[in-house]
Amino acid sequence: MTKLRETIGRIGPLDEGAMAAAKARQDSLTKPPGSLGRLEELSIKIAGITGKPLPGVERKSIVVMAGDHGIVEEGVSAYPQEVTPQMVYNFLRGVAAINVLARHVGARVVVVDMGVAADLEPHPDLRSRKVAPGTANFAKEPAMSREQAVKALEAGIEVFEAELAKGLDIVATGDMGIGNTTASTAIAAVFTGEPVGLLTGRGTGIGDEQLAHKAKVVEEAIARRQPDPRDALDVLAKVGGFEIGGLAGVILGAAAHRVPVVIDGFISGAAALVATGLCPAAREYLIPAHNSVEIGHQSVLRHLGLRPLLNLDLRLGEGTGAALAISLVEASLKILGQMATFAEAGVSGALEAEPTLPK
Amino acid sequence: MTKLRETIGRIGPLDEGAMAAAKARQDSLTKPPGSLGRLEELSIKIAGITGKPLPGVERKSIVVMAGDHGIVEEGVSAYPQEVTPQMVYNFLRGVAAINVLARHVGARVVVVDMGVAADLEPHPDLRSRKVAPGTANFAKEPAMSREQAVKALEAGIEVFEAELAKGLDIVATGDMGIGNTTASTAIAAVFTGEPVGLLTGRGTGIGDEQLAHKAKVVEEAIARRQPDPRDALDVLAKVGGFEIGGLAGVILGAAAHRVPVVIDGFISGAAALVATGLCPAAREYLIPAHNSVEIGHQSVLRHLGLRPLLNLDLRLGEGTGAALAISLVEASLKILGQMATFAEAGVSGALEAEPTLPK
Repeated sequence: MTKLRETIGRIGPLDEGAMAAAKARQDSLTKPPGSLGRLEELSIKIAGITGKPLPGVERKSIVVMAGDHGIVEEGVSAYPQEVTPQMVYNFLRGVAAINVLARHVGARVVVVDMGVAADLEPHPDLRSRKVAPGTANFAKEPAMSREQAVKALEAGIEVFEAELAKGLDIVATGDMGIGNTTASTAIAAVFTGEPVGLLTGRGTGIGDEQLAHKAKVVEEAIARRQPDPRDALDVLAKVGGFEIGGLAGVILGAAAHRVPVVIDGFISGAAALVATGLCPAAREYLIPAHNSVEIGHQSVLRHLGLRPLLNLDLRLGEGTGAALAISLVEASLKILGQMATFAEAGVSGALEAEPTLPK
Repeated sequence: MTKLRETIGRIGPLDEGAMAAAKARQDSLTKPPGSLGRLEELSIKIAGITGKPLPGVERKSIVVMAGDHGIVEEGVSAYPQEVTPQMVYNFLRGVAAINVLARHVGARVVVVDMGVAADLEPHPDLRSRKVAPGTANFAKEPAMSREQAVKALEAGIEVFEAELAKGLDIVATGDMGIGNTTASTAIAAVFTGEPVGLLTGRGTGIGDEQLAHKAKVVEEAIARRQPDPRDALDVLAKVGGFEIGGLAGVILGAAAHRVPVVIDGFISGAAALVATGLCPAAREYLIPAHNSVEIGHQSVLRHLGLRPLLNLDLRLGEGTGAALAISLVEASLKILGQMATFAEAGVSGALEAEPTLPK
């Protein structure tokens, strides 16, 4: 608990001075002020996060956390649980979607076993932080104990700090875990207060009957477990997942160390709800990557007050949307750092006043 | 006219066989089918454009065409006309927004003087295809002759073919020209049939009074010139611009040679209206990059039946949105080409049938 408390204690507001300096520079560059829209906003936000007026993102890491979910016993997924370890090996072989997109944007991928329900072979790129081999079935009992929830969060903070020690300018969150949209739906329902039916999506691709069943499972589980939205640790413990807790830890670690953290889709969004539930100030450090097809994600982003950068109808997870968003963040900072100013380029600025208009 | 006619004659439909092969491969990759949404669609479209089941985009070119507009006499812009040549030099020095973003995505930039109202110093990266030093003021007379319109289009085709000869897998369009949102507004109004008031935007950043004036200028000019939407050459000649004609030529050249062409914002959209007015089949070769803040752009994309990839509140032009979209196209093709299939990875597919749901 000390690690978690200390980390939260370090999270402060954005650096207003760095943001003002970045804004002033954006306005001096050879383009009409504001004409690069959200790229300008992004660069200013990263300045505020890092405290640097001219930040860069050379060193990028995508943390993909895997965990299994006891709730799959209820028949909520289109894929069998064995897919979780199979996909972990796929990540480690470098041939999954996240590997392809990470290479595309020049990011490294770190895969973390937070609670896969199988013994995984050791691998140099695999961090083993297994809290337990899968959560308990939260339809019948809490997904994990409060102690396990803290352990998952602190593991996430430590994974982040290990990445930071290797050199890190930006981090992104990704997930793998059959059943994890069900846990995320429960978390989203508790924090946003919106009806479960409006938050439940098709995950890996379930049909209509199974979708209705999934919503019912979540609804009944929340009624039985009674997670308290004012106590984020309680929510994580009762209806969460080990990888969700781990990703919330990554977010808290990033915010504490003033590193921008790109959040992927619905599962990362659920992790962000847990992280900001524990520490509202962490919200300012989040870069929302994309708008997932998984319908609950929109509610999560609305609740967090975040507008996603991409809208590509993605619903894979793994950090795939976050990888693409890293490239936009990098582009925004290159604009800030590499473009000429009007003065340097000898380009005329806007007309002093509007011209006298011909009648 | 021969060049233009021949080019249009070469434009055919997408390759259905290549698209079917790409779709089959997407469905065999280690992810739930469809879960990478628009990235999957994009890769399939590029297969259809190129006729290759596994296309790649190594060689990328962004063609930035510059031209001046006689209509600026009417007081429609926030910046003086001298900014057009100043920005051309800025592009050639490699310090404008488009240079930064082109480097970010690994694309080369070719700058073309299609009709700048100034004598430009020669430069190895500058193509001089000046039709005339700026269009005529289309409030008072046609912007150009029909012969000049053909000349602009054929120059665009030749610029494209010169890029193709250097090696090219994807091309993007960009623009520079003080006054060119006014010409584009007129083109958009003629082709879409929507009211000028709903299509007129702030361009480089004009105020409310000037905005109303700009709409009035366009409305009156269309009433006087009477461009015929069934004759795209007539529209280009009466209310267009040399860079707009040149970009329409680039689009036609790309479609004729089965190279995907990423269109940037409002000016590139106007060029796409001219190109598809001349040859409707060219539409299939367009990749719409982003949704510009310039309000007429949404109507243009709707009219073309295209959904943009990015929504970043950009309104700079130069090809900046297109540059970012190139990176998404490349990502989509890397997914198609580099991900493992379920069979290769030994990952289980979806459950054969929905599980028997517990009562």
